[in-house]
Amino acid sequence: MNNSLPTARDKVLFTPGPLTTSLTVKQAMLRDAGSWHFEFNVKVKEIRQRILKLAGVTSEKGYECILLQGSGTFGVESVFSTSVPEGGKVLVLSNGAYGERMVAMLKCLRIENTVYRTGENEPPDPAHVASLLEKDTDITHVAVVHCETTTGIVNPIASIGKTVKAAQRHYIVDAMSSLGGMPIDFEDACIDFLVSSANKCIEGVPGFSFVIAKRDPLFANESTTRSLSLDLAAQLRGFEKNGQFRYSPPTHSLLAFEQALNELDTEGGVEGRAARYKRNHEVLMNGMESLGFKSYLDAKFQSYLITSFHFPEDSKFTFDAFYRKLSDRGMIIYPGKISQVDLFRIGSIGRIFECDVLALVGSIQGALTDMGVSMR
Amino acid sequence: MNNSLPTARDKVLFTPGPLTTSLTVKQAMLRDAGSWHFEFNVKVKEIRQRILKLAGVTSEKGYECILLQGSGTFGVESVFSTSVPEGGKVLVLSNGAYGERMVAMLKCLRIENTVYRTGENEPPDPAHVASLLEKDTDITHVAVVHCETTTGIVNPIASIGKTVKAAQRHYIVDAMSSLGGMPIDFEDACIDFLVSSANKCIEGVPGFSFVIAKRDPLFANESTTRSLSLDLAAQLRGFEKNGQFRYSPPTHSLLAFEQALNELDTEGGVEGRAARYKRNHEVLMNGMESLGFKSYLDAKFQSYLITSFHFPEDSKFTFDAFYRKLSDRGMIIYPGKISQVDLFRIGSIGRIFECDVLALVGSIQGALTDMGVSMR
Repeated sequence: MNNSLPTARDKVLFTPGPLTTSLTVKQAMLRDAGSWHFEFNVKVKEIRQRILKLAGVTSEKGYECILLQGSGTFGVESVFSTSVPEGGKVLVLSNGAYGERMVAMLKCLRIENTVYRTGENEPPDPAHVASLLEKDTDITHVAVVHCETTTGIVNPIASIGKTVKAAQRHYIVDAMSSLGGMPIDFEDACIDFLVSSANKCIEGVPGFSFVIAKRDPLFANESTTRSLSLDLAAQLRGFEKNGQFRYSPPTHSLLAFEQALNELDTEGGVEGRAARYKRNHEVLMNGMESLGFKSYLDAKFQSYLITSFHFPEDSKFTFDAFYRKLSDRGMIIYPGKISQVDLFRIGSIGRIFECDVLALVGSIQGALTDMGVSMR
Repeated sequence: MNNSLPTARDKVLFTPGPLTTSLTVKQAMLRDAGSWHFEFNVKVKEIRQRILKLAGVTSEKGYECILLQGSGTFGVESVFSTSVPEGGKVLVLSNGAYGERMVAMLKCLRIENTVYRTGENEPPDPAHVASLLEKDTDITHVAVVHCETTTGIVNPIASIGKTVKAAQRHYIVDAMSSLGGMPIDFEDACIDFLVSSANKCIEGVPGFSFVIAKRDPLFANESTTRSLSLDLAAQLRGFEKNGQFRYSPPTHSLLAFEQALNELDTEGGVEGRAARYKRNHEVLMNGMESLGFKSYLDAKFQSYLITSFHFPEDSKFTFDAFYRKLSDRGMIIYPGKISQVDLFRIGSIGRIFECDVLALVGSIQGALTDMGVSMR
């Protein structure tokens, strides 16, 4: 059963991830590696070092890269679970679903927290963060999402980081959607913990997340860990002890990731990749504007990674029909994720190029024509 | 960098997993699926249903299958984290590292627990379990490992389950190494929660674990969950709400798993697969005995999935050299995992056949000759 051959090529993913990846990245998975074998351990070590290099930090400066099985959410939870001491308190800066997800995590973990919410189209104000930290001396950690996938907004992680550092608190950045696609200056942004995932801008396949952490705050509260699986300090001790994951790693995802890192290098590193994503975004914005679509965010907060567009005003438009018509044309976009405004989202990331974005814009026009939707 | 072609075929994995898989299972990963797309959701639903069918249970009888990102350990922890109420207490039956891992998890989760330990070559006694449950009425859950990968011992899950059921407690079985390779009668064994993994006897690739759970005990303590990522009840609610994983799924591992299920069907289901594994084990035992090796376990407790052998007595034998000589011959075995006795382990599972086991035995003989090890 289900043994039939594919009846179509893969649909192109204009989503926030998992993304379209190169064939060569996927082909790297046509092997079975011994998960604790010395040859595989060497690859794991190299991957950890290459991530640090990509991030522009080093072990000598006190940074380590820890790979963790599961999705990006598991990585974010592992940071809270491992690094916040008993009696610690986290200030979450939230302007979207991923900020709110941090709040939900902290509740499950029974970690005290407070939330500074801004509108989904508005970044947090570093000066307000400073005043919150001054007023509430119980706060030990501040957490923020770099590029909120909810809308595509970019939050000012460097200026917030400087504020957090000045107030001597620890700083956690969810850079799931940005690392590898946007330059991040770790030291300038005073980052203690940054979380990202294999299947985002590095263009690997899903299977693990990774955390770039400063050793000292990572190991400061080793005795208070709240989970065995998500214990990031123990995970690092495991790598340092014998080069192995503590528990079965996603061997195929790791082989794919090694190839993805090779292809990122070939593209000219983060800078080269960012140039392609920016071009994808520019072509998208031009095309969508020419069709009459309006983007949700103020241009000055808009990332070139993911973009939210307002629904057309014509009542003949329904997202479900629109989505299906694009799917019929071999393209997958994303629904919106905020409640106040009707939006859909389009990603400019993954192994997609200007030609793919142009084809998408053409398909969107065709879908609107099919639906009889007028853009006024 | 690292762009060189493979210089050898993949080594054959005689390990407890991740295992050697078929080429066709790996080829199923040469696609990128939309992780929340309706076509992918259909596959996820089918996979969940096919696991239930494989386990011989149905939703109508109150069982559900929940897929969870991460390794098998994440799955086991999710069961404890989600199902044990505040003030609950777990009796762990331990005769190996995976039983001890449960104890470590419960400690991290701050869940009260008590341990009934037997020797690593000795299964727990159901009558003793009954007396422990009678004496300690605080115990709410009993947890056991079916086939302890530490040694390869099979624990009597059915007779223990009947005891647990008679005492009206909940029953958790870690069947990581056995499901798909050994028949398990869920109703006879009175199982409430069974955990297994994609990369064991179903012969998929790593990336997720799965739990077959009875609805009622799963949802009984929904408010007390201790983790967002590992919240099994919320994960099931997610699947039931919109067919989606709550957080990014390992799409490629899931496509591989679908193909692995097809190939399990083609082999004649669990019965057909068990026959191949039994034959692999028989060939292994005959070959190793003829070389003069002694297995660790009493034959009546020995699984046909993984087998522990004593080191040769000759002082010229070192495990590291032995391991490397087998690796040079393209074969990977496993070290032992118990402290009292020097053992190594050989798995009979994965996409390996009688011919592979015969080749392994030949390589072992060659390795011993190279090392100048005499078997007496």
